Amino acid sequence: MELNKIKSNKTFSGHTNVYKHQSAITKTEMTFSTFEPQEKVKNCILWLSGLTCTEENFITKAGAQCYLKGTDTMILCPDTSPRGLDLPNEHESYDFGSGAGFYLNATTADYKDHYHMYDYIMKEVVPILHENFNVENISIMGHSMGGHGALILGLREADTFKSVSAFSPIVNPTQCPWGEKAFMGYLGDDRESWKQYDPTELLKAGKKRSDTILIEQGLADEFFEGQLKTGNIESVAREVSQKLTVNYRDGYDHSYYFISTFIEDHIQFHLNAL
Amino acid sequence: MELNKIKSNKTFSGHTNVYKHQSAITKTEMTFSTFEPQEKVKNCILWLSGLTCTEENFITKAGAQCYLKGTDTMILCPDTSPRGLDLPNEHESYDFGSGAGFYLNATTADYKDHYHMYDYIMKEVVPILHENFNVENISIMGHSMGGHGALILGLREADTFKSVSAFSPIVNPTQCPWGEKAFMGYLGDDRESWKQYDPTELLKAGKKRSDTILIEQGLADEFFEGQLKTGNIESVAREVSQKLTVNYRDGYDHSYYFISTFIEDHIQFHLNAL
Repeated sequence: MELNKIKSNKTFSGHTNVYKHQSAITKTEMTFSTFEPQEKVKNCILWLSGLTCTEENFITKAGAQCYLKGTDTMILCPDTSPRGLDLPNEHESYDFGSGAGFYLNATTADYKDHYHMYDYIMKEVVPILHENFNVENISIMGHSMGGHGALILGLREADTFKSVSAFSPIVNPTQCPWGEKAFMGYLGDDRESWKQYDPTELLKAGKKRSDTILIEQGLADEFFEGQLKTGNIESVAREVSQKLTVNYRDGYDHSYYFISTFIEDHIQFHLNAL
Repeated sequence: MELNKIKSNKTFSGHTNVYKHQSAITKTEMTFSTFEPQEKVKNCILWLSGLTCTEENFITKAGAQCYLKGTDTMILCPDTSPRGLDLPNEHESYDFGSGAGFYLNATTADYKDHYHMYDYIMKEVVPILHENFNVENISIMGHSMGGHGALILGLREADTFKSVSAFSPIVNPTQCPWGEKAFMGYLGDDRESWKQYDPTELLKAGKKRSDTILIEQGLADEFFEGQLKTGNIESVAREVSQKLTVNYRDGYDHSYYFISTFIEDHIQFHLNAL
């Protein structure tokens, strides 16, 4: 894949970079950021961002670079949707269309030609990691909508991702307003088809990992009860014996301040698995 | 002083907060951010931001909070200018007017009623730290225009600030385009009056600190030669025997990625002095 490095800032002896490339999957230009430590890279943690984010939020706000300096592990953060299009309703709301790709393959007439973020990750980003960055092993984590993305990819593609974690994930999108709006718009009204992109439903359907999934959830998160529904995945994980650690954190909200506080723990979790 | 806390996010067991208050100095509402660790606070490091910044840049991007957790030291970041005004030429360029207060007391007809950021720091922020936050000791640091601010305040108010450091500071603003434009606009054409706000000129005029000033400067900084002129303060510091450490860092630029890489060293420098 031909990558065009459009930004590079030295950070903790390595580099924070931003790349653009033409995507055959989304049929648009796509952008992602990386942190590449000074050392020869062997592994990557993939970070999937939440609603409204671009490839830049994590890399500027999470403070993750300092925990990866001196390791053989890079980080890669894709953008959250195709850009530069003007599809029906694409730019009208923060929780659908641009900035809100939900890491699925759209099937509705308006979105099926471009919004294939699931395939973008699996068929372009993963190969780019192997071929352009010589990465051997990959783990995955994300926040909110990106936590949902990390969980569905981690459950469905268990061989590809060595470990999975999430901050404030949407664990049961078929049962919350964000998920219902997005899935209706991208997948149409066949609710059965939604389940392949719902972490809790995937566990119910028998998708499992042999390792422990890690979730971090703030108890002062304004979306905790209405959108995230962390308890739903906990009870199903118990039923199907999926190992799952959920750390509930008193007083923490949905912001990057929460992520920055516990990102060291999640990076260490993935470094141990890689 | 009556403060209105408008944001609060739990971070590393403490809180990242944003406050608004009415300023008698700028005759506007002013905004500042803080990180207040969980522990009882005794000291504060004041951070002054650079051109175009608000009170939010440092607190979201520098990754400083993790180095202050568990300490008795808070951080406070003022905004870089008064806001909500519409003075002549105030919003036309990134390097003058809003976002570019230069930590001085303006004397020109257009700006003298509001742009008094020097007095804002000394007569409002410092008293707020003592009275509202029970802070005993204060240190000061900043970036670019804010590095200039930290140096002039640290040299002129040596008794108030226990230690002084700067990232990529404008060390000789009377001799560079950013400084000349700002000083002409805020102070008029009497160049003699500019020298009270020029760190290099202050050293020449006999202002000194008994402790060592710390400067961090990236060698890939796009403003290094044209605007920052770090060598000018080095040679004058040698002449007047002001202890000064300048760390030149190969490959680092003017960005917050540079700041985030070395902020731990600067925080430790101030913690040692406080």
